[in-house]
Amino acid sequence: MAWFYEHYRDTSAVGIHTTGKLHEERSAFQAIEVLETKGHGRLLTLDGMVMLTELDEFVYHDLLTHVPLCAHADPKQVLVVGGGDGGTVREVLKHASVERVVQCEIDERVTRVCQEYIPSVAGFLDDPRVELVFEDAVAYVKRHPNTFDAILVDSTEPIGPAAALFGEPFFRDLDAALRPGGVISSQSESPFYAPEVIQGLFGAVRRVFPEVHGYYGVIPTYPGGGWVFCMASHSRSPGDLDLDRAAALSTRYFSPAVAQGAFMLPSFVRELVTAGDAQA
Amino acid sequence: MAWFYEHYRDTSAVGIHTTGKLHEERSAFQAIEVLETKGHGRLLTLDGMVMLTELDEFVYHDLLTHVPLCAHADPKQVLVVGGGDGGTVREVLKHASVERVVQCEIDERVTRVCQEYIPSVAGFLDDPRVELVFEDAVAYVKRHPNTFDAILVDSTEPIGPAAALFGEPFFRDLDAALRPGGVISSQSESPFYAPEVIQGLFGAVRRVFPEVHGYYGVIPTYPGGGWVFCMASHSRSPGDLDLDRAAALSTRYFSPAVAQGAFMLPSFVRELVTAGDAQA
Repeated sequence: MAWFYEHYRDTSAVGIHTTGKLHEERSAFQAIEVLETKGHGRLLTLDGMVMLTELDEFVYHDLLTHVPLCAHADPKQVLVVGGGDGGTVREVLKHASVERVVQCEIDERVTRVCQEYIPSVAGFLDDPRVELVFEDAVAYVKRHPNTFDAILVDSTEPIGPAAALFGEPFFRDLDAALRPGGVISSQSESPFYAPEVIQGLFGAVRRVFPEVHGYYGVIPTYPGGGWVFCMASHSRSPGDLDLDRAAALSTRYFSPAVAQGAFMLPSFVRELVTAGDAQA
Repeated sequence: MAWFYEHYRDTSAVGIHTTGKLHEERSAFQAIEVLETKGHGRLLTLDGMVMLTELDEFVYHDLLTHVPLCAHADPKQVLVVGGGDGGTVREVLKHASVERVVQCEIDERVTRVCQEYIPSVAGFLDDPRVELVFEDAVAYVKRHPNTFDAILVDSTEPIGPAAALFGEPFFRDLDAALRPGGVISSQSESPFYAPEVIQGLFGAVRRVFPEVHGYYGVIPTYPGGGWVFCMASHSRSPGDLDLDRAAALSTRYFSPAVAQGAFMLPSFVRELVTAGDAQA
């Protein structure tokens, strides 16, 4: 083993020094690999794309989880769409109000591999509040109207099995699956390398929800580092984030300062996430 | 040509798809290359390290320049330490109050190469307010006490010629070169891959200046993407940033929102930049 590279859209690449392969398999959905690295802890890839490293996964999971949960008044029922590595569930469980978190992942093998090889991330899935569901989240969401206080879309890139998770029909189903006062979050890629993904996602979300807000963080092992997230709701906005709850969480990235600052977007990112305004 | 890779500390790498080499030379100080790329415009490397690409240089130059200049009450005399590519000077010139900006770069060849091959960045150096000095900034600063309102340290990595630009003696000289009310900024590397550089720099600055503040941005082609900057002063703090001036600037990254949000640091970054507090 030497260097793992993810080449992104034939334009940029991220490299990670690897020291060994712990696991590889081809599931019904994708190629799954777990690699040992020199400076990043363990590395999970799906179809050759970096899903997480132990060095920096906390950034992604903090932002996807704690922003919407702190924006909700009292989140009890939470759905994680995708997120088979268990990292988002780990963060959801830090919220004392949460009574149940459903992780709906299409590929059970991702979860089982992470439970075996990356317990720092997947080692919290046996909590009694966790319900594991292995099926297409698109179908699951349709069957559960008016059920969840927060839905966190922890998807892969909008190609292959995850493509549907970026479209307006899916967000309409998410809206129906929310209880009153509900909030959703979604990851939405790099403003440098995938600006059209961001514009498309925010445009779709804005046709469903009146409150749509972009926020931004840095995940070194994702292409471009900078990563945009979307929070949407009928009633909750960034000003509703409970900073006392944010301060009480044990987190390495998220904090009351981040809860406010992450929404203060660079100009070119703000233009991308508000481009849908004109279309609406 | 195919892919250019910068391998960082034998741990991570950044890759850029290149399509041709426009220039290469070995100056008295370093190897200088300008490459054409597929998705990043032109790429400048020094000793094989990415200095800038036309795709994302605006992030770095906006943060290094506009944060301290908007924090100063009325910046007239500005010194850029290093910054031979001219991008920082380009941004300084956007401030109407500035009467003179000195770019003190040790390697004249960097500037001349950029003037020839990267005019989008270096094409503003013939402005009558600009004074080009080609010498070691350490010596230049010592000879110019009580001269500048703002000093922007646009250095390379703290190895080779730039190592002195990260130490306490240099910051003492910068302090002496400032006029009353002066402000400095410095780039200080990735919190994921070079945390000890950040701790060292902030510790050194804090032993000289009472107001020392970290801020954070995303530069995709730098190792780790996330990049920490330092602003320091005897009298000016983030609360002094003039948001009206920030709003009036024509910039793609910087904005009044960024002027506030960039200082709202992730918890693990705040720990790094305040580690020096205990040592002080």
